[in-house]
Amino acid sequence: MTAPLGVAVIGAGRMGADHVRRIQEVVSGARVTAVVDVDADRAEAVAAPVDGCTAHTDPAAAMAVADVDAVLIASPGPAHEEALLAAFAHDLPVLCEKPLTPDPASALRVLEAEQALGRRRVQVGFMRRYDPEYTRLRAVLETGRLGRPLMLHNRHRNVASASFFTSSMLISDSVAHEADVTRWLFGHEITAVTVLRPTPSSAAPEGLLDPQFVVFETAGGALSDVEIFVNCQFGYEVQAEAVCERGTARIGAGHGLLTSTEGRWGGAIPQDWTERFADAYDRQLQAWVDATRRGEVTGPSTWDGYAAAAVCAAGVRALHEGRRVEVELAERPALYG
Amino acid sequence: MTAPLGVAVIGAGRMGADHVRRIQEVVSGARVTAVVDVDADRAEAVAAPVDGCTAHTDPAAAMAVADVDAVLIASPGPAHEEALLAAFAHDLPVLCEKPLTPDPASALRVLEAEQALGRRRVQVGFMRRYDPEYTRLRAVLETGRLGRPLMLHNRHRNVASASFFTSSMLISDSVAHEADVTRWLFGHEITAVTVLRPTPSSAAPEGLLDPQFVVFETAGGALSDVEIFVNCQFGYEVQAEAVCERGTARIGAGHGLLTSTEGRWGGAIPQDWTERFADAYDRQLQAWVDATRRGEVTGPSTWDGYAAAAVCAAGVRALHEGRRVEVELAERPALYG
Amino acid sequence: MTAPLGVAVIGAGRMGADHVRRIQEVVSGARVTAVVDVDADRAEAVAAPVDGCTAHTDPAAAMAVADVDAVLIASPGPAHEEALLAAFAHDLPVLCEKPLTPDPASALRVLEAEQALGRRRVQVGFMRRYDPEYTRLRAVLETGRLGRPLMLHNRHRNVASASFFTSSMLISDSVAHEADVTRWLFGHEITAVTVLRPTPSSAAPEGLLDPQFVVFETAGGALSDVEIFVNCQFGYEVQAEAVCERGTARIGAGHGLLTSTEGRWGGAIPQDWTERFADAYDRQLQAWVDATRRGEVTGPSTWDGYAAAAVCAAGVRALHEGRRVEVELAERPALYG
Amino acid sequence: MTAPLGVAVIGAGRMGADHVRRIQEVVSGARVTAVVDVDADRAEAVAAPVDGCTAHTDPAAAMAVADVDAVLIASPGPAHEEALLAAFAHDLPVLCEKPLTPDPASALRVLEAEQALGRRRVQVGFMRRYDPEYTRLRAVLETGRLGRPLMLHNRHRNVASASFFTSSMLISDSVAHEADVTRWLFGHEITAVTVLRPTPSSAAPEGLLDPQFVVFETAGGALSDVEIFVNCQFGYEVQAEAVCERGTARIGAGHGLLTSTEGRWGGAIPQDWTERFADAYDRQLQAWVDATRRGEVTGPSTWDGYAAAAVCAAGVRALHEGRRVEVELAERPALYG
Repeated sequence: MTAPLGVAVIGAGRMGADHVRRIQEVVSGARVTAVVDVDADRAEAVAAPVDGCTAHTDPAAAMAVADVDAVLIASPGPAHEEALLAAFAHDLPVLCEKPLTPDPASALRVLEAEQALGRRRVQVGFMRRYDPEYTRLRAVLETGRLGRPLMLHNRHRNVASASFFTSSMLISDSVAHEADVTRWLFGHEITAVTVLRPTPSSAAPEGLLDPQFVVFETAGGALSDVEIFVNCQFGYEVQAEAVCERGTARIGAGHGLLTSTEGRWGGAIPQDWTERFADAYDRQLQAWVDATRRGEVTGPSTWDGYAAAAVCAAGVRALHEGRRVEVELAERPALYG
Repeated sequence: MTAPLGVAVIGAGRMGADHVRRIQEVVSGARVTAVVDVDADRAEAVAAPVDGCTAHTDPAAAMAVADVDAVLIASPGPAHEEALLAAFAHDLPVLCEKPLTPDPASALRVLEAEQALGRRRVQVGFMRRYDPEYTRLRAVLETGRLGRPLMLHNRHRNVASASFFTSSMLISDSVAHEADVTRWLFGHEITAVTVLRPTPSSAAPEGLLDPQFVVFETAGGALSDVEIFVNCQFGYEVQAEAVCERGTARIGAGHGLLTSTEGRWGGAIPQDWTERFADAYDRQLQAWVDATRRGEVTGPSTWDGYAAAAVCAAGVRALHEGRRVEVELAERPALYG
Repeated sequence: MTAPLGVAVIGAGRMGADHVRRIQEVVSGARVTAVVDVDADRAEAVAAPVDGCTAHTDPAAAMAVADVDAVLIASPGPAHEEALLAAFAHDLPVLCEKPLTPDPASALRVLEAEQALGRRRVQVGFMRRYDPEYTRLRAVLETGRLGRPLMLHNRHRNVASASFFTSSMLISDSVAHEADVTRWLFGHEITAVTVLRPTPSSAAPEGLLDPQFVVFETAGGALSDVEIFVNCQFGYEVQAEAVCERGTARIGAGHGLLTSTEGRWGGAIPQDWTERFADAYDRQLQAWVDATRRGEVTGPSTWDGYAAAAVCAAGVRALHEGRRVEVELAERPALYG
Repeated sequence: MTAPLGVAVIGAGRMGADHVRRIQEVVSGARVTAVVDVDADRAEAVAAPVDGCTAHTDPAAAMAVADVDAVLIASPGPAHEEALLAAFAHDLPVLCEKPLTPDPASALRVLEAEQALGRRRVQVGFMRRYDPEYTRLRAVLETGRLGRPLMLHNRHRNVASASFFTSSMLISDSVAHEADVTRWLFGHEITAVTVLRPTPSSAAPEGLLDPQFVVFETAGGALSDVEIFVNCQFGYEVQAEAVCERGTARIGAGHGLLTSTEGRWGGAIPQDWTERFADAYDRQLQAWVDATRRGEVTGPSTWDGYAAAAVCAAGVRALHEGRRVEVELAERPALYG
């Protein structure tokens, strides 16, 4: 394909608008040809500055536009299923922001719809797989130089949580990333989840169980533990250490510029994910555009989106019931072999 | 006291001989005046080079020697109770290597005997409390600058385990240190233990559950998790990160000399505890000598030794029963305020 | 401008071919419309896979092509002057790889030709100004938080030098980057150069004075010292530490993924600049494309290229004459205020 | 020798009093038996708390005391020569704080007096040779694993200088340490010195040339450069990087406890040498006591003290004359082979 890929962006909120910027100004080989939002004004505001881009309130209508070659879904999670099914109907490849859908049942419906097409159409937006540090971590594990992985220690810290954030969302919204990372790095499904609840930080909003400590068990016998702390106040830190039979590999220590002043040496900690993972978002989108233009679908699949939903559902139950909960997973279809 | 402190060293094995060296060559204000070992030849071999030092096979006999002012117990754990009670009978202050005794019941007997004396006589050899990094970690927590501690993440890795090491000993021998560190840093007793068992490393001896992942819950609501991995092959690593309400503090990252060569930058990892904690052993002994010469008993108490035994006993049960086990603890006597 | 910028790439060697790839696959808003090389086959080989791209042996002929909006010069240094003057004649904006030209006299001619146009047309390829670490270093200095800069310590190490590399080229080819970085970070011209010559490494080719130690003095009274070592064998390291009145800021320590294995902890060192500065090249090109599409010329100017040439000429004399040499610089034209 | 070494401490100022504390409370195998100071009250105040210690105003009188086995000189530099000669007269071994004497001429007289004795009596207090990081650096160089050393980059920063500190003292008092370290690490004499003078920091007292940048050339062809900055305001930093043919080794990066809080990660910088080199002072003294009790003299010799004086004298001239100055050195006597 020599012409740029025409992309319909579904959702014109913060994330959608940022993807529009990314497609227009950062990524090579693509342009935005349609913007969709339930709020017509918002769709129009994002579409207007883009040359030749139309605004819509209905995803299916946008997908019917002539120069739409692919779909990027950045609307709220509950709207994903409808948009995905519409894309399937128009036979368009999709980059779908996480979560695939908000729960395992709906994810399973999408999974079945894609199987009915007989080929993969969806890449799920687990952008950490495109982060240079995570990709290097995986590459090191794959060399086998450190031996078989036994444990993964994860830290996931945010400065402060949004007002609408609930105790369950620490699992379903935040730890969802570590669920995917664990599956991706270890190459095994997660089979059980335990959630421990230390006394909440006094900086957490009243009633929010923050921090939490999550332990995943995997089919391969390896463990993955996650400290999730969304009101840590001091910065956005995402770290991982893989402990293998002959050594460990760790990322997220944070460096770049070091200063020594006023009796301290050290560096700055990013304050949010837009800074820490800017590069991963750029690379994810470029990879999707490149694959799509080659007629391929790569990256995290619908199955990965479904598995993450199933793990998170088990995690939320583990949190509330205070016990170890096993993950229930459908059989993996051949399509996602 | 102006004369050097005369010390009877009980146990002339590797650890005891090293303490003799430390007292004679490193520490100020003390000398070895008696050496005890069940093996008379071994006692004699260690005592002979020391000016004015006698050799014995019976602890009580050694304690009766005129120039013995204090006792250092470095014999195997099962021999500790008898030596401690003998020291109490001779009214001598004691530095007792960990464990205080091998189980909570015997530890409780020692605790009661010391209470009967009406004053502290024992310092238990939890030498991490004298390690410069751990003391700095505690000092930072005590400033309150980082807020209340919520979690402690511990790593404890050895190159390889001795042939007699059992799955239970990963808890009772190794994690015993983290049990004490957790209590000391948080200022709260440990109330429950959970032990997770990932698939063992292929480098672990047949049948040894190594690594293990231990989670302590404390009376203050804080968590402490421990990766214990005694056949990690690559080095001796002891690390801790305290996660507090406004920040984290971590030790054990390892530095000193950095080299860049052959495509890699970095530093050496110590290969065992004699290298990593040499300084802590020196400082522990000097602190004990100094306090003893002032007529004081400081440092980890018999209660600390007993509490560690109780936590480890619960941990061993948690390991074997595959479930969360609560720690049973006697009431804390006033003597240990 | 809504259409992509049409770029003629002059020089189809390793660097030119890499820029073609970058324009086609990485950068947003540009495409290659002409490729020039003295070797017609090489030009053709690079141009052929690019849709709508023509091949040429003469820069001026390529610049006459209808869809050429801008010129990227990546030919050998001696060919730069002719290509730059041709671009001026066609009134085309230029991104010119360093060096601007090989010596101060020719650089001065280009400077005068650009002044005759009455506006800036040239950005010189000092890509370190686009490296995220260097830009952060400059940003920190500009906050004034660390006070006035007093010294800059630079390290510039390559694994091995090419067979044609001469002792003078350590200055003119390698240290040229630090000459620019020093001027850019300090905002002052370099006034004198001293070069010290330690005994060469036995890994350096016979007759090559490697390493060298260069000290720049600046008009503002600050020093900048450079270790240049092009046969260090172990990796490609570029480091800088700015020492200011109230603190220091340093970059290039190298991190990302850390491993602990076989008794060592640490990370990999990049092996060449294509790895270390890949990002800087991408950002430089995107910045140039974006500015050009806005009708602007930004980044390092012809004056910067000329000044670097003058500093390097003084440096080469300092190397050979074994003494401090003052830098001779024309008066700075108002155009480069 | 089984009795503790009896030490006369000459000089009861801050440094002398600290050595008394170190001998009494830290070091094994020694005790203070005499204290000397020109101020009788000060000598008395330091001697009084020490059991069996006498106070004196005359070094020779103190050396005549029966239980004085060795001498530690911690008086001001100009008083060293007389005390050293008195110790030679009493045939006592000496630990002499740096500088050996304030200038090359007086150092040469001491050198000749010691030669007349026919055996070494003096250890000079270059305590960096006992710092764990410097000793590890030297050990790495001695393995030959990194190849021959080519350059040494040194940083030496103090928070603020004393009111009496002069521009020359940056060389003779501070850089004297790097002069010794360079000679010790490289095993070659320093042959020439160049001093560059950047614009002074506005935090430096009026008239003080601070920072300075010193470059040593050595007989082996290696360079050693030193940033000396005694009013850096932010901390006490001593760093060194040895650049060798196959790699580099560096110390002084500073670690231990790392915190992440308020948007920054990093560690504390020591604020003065008593913190950074406490360990080196302890080890130096223990090594001297141990060697003396064995009847040996080890460590930095009178020749090392003389050579440092000669290098510093050349450095002070290089500073004031603004040019490279060669170091004038007597022939090395066989005694110091």
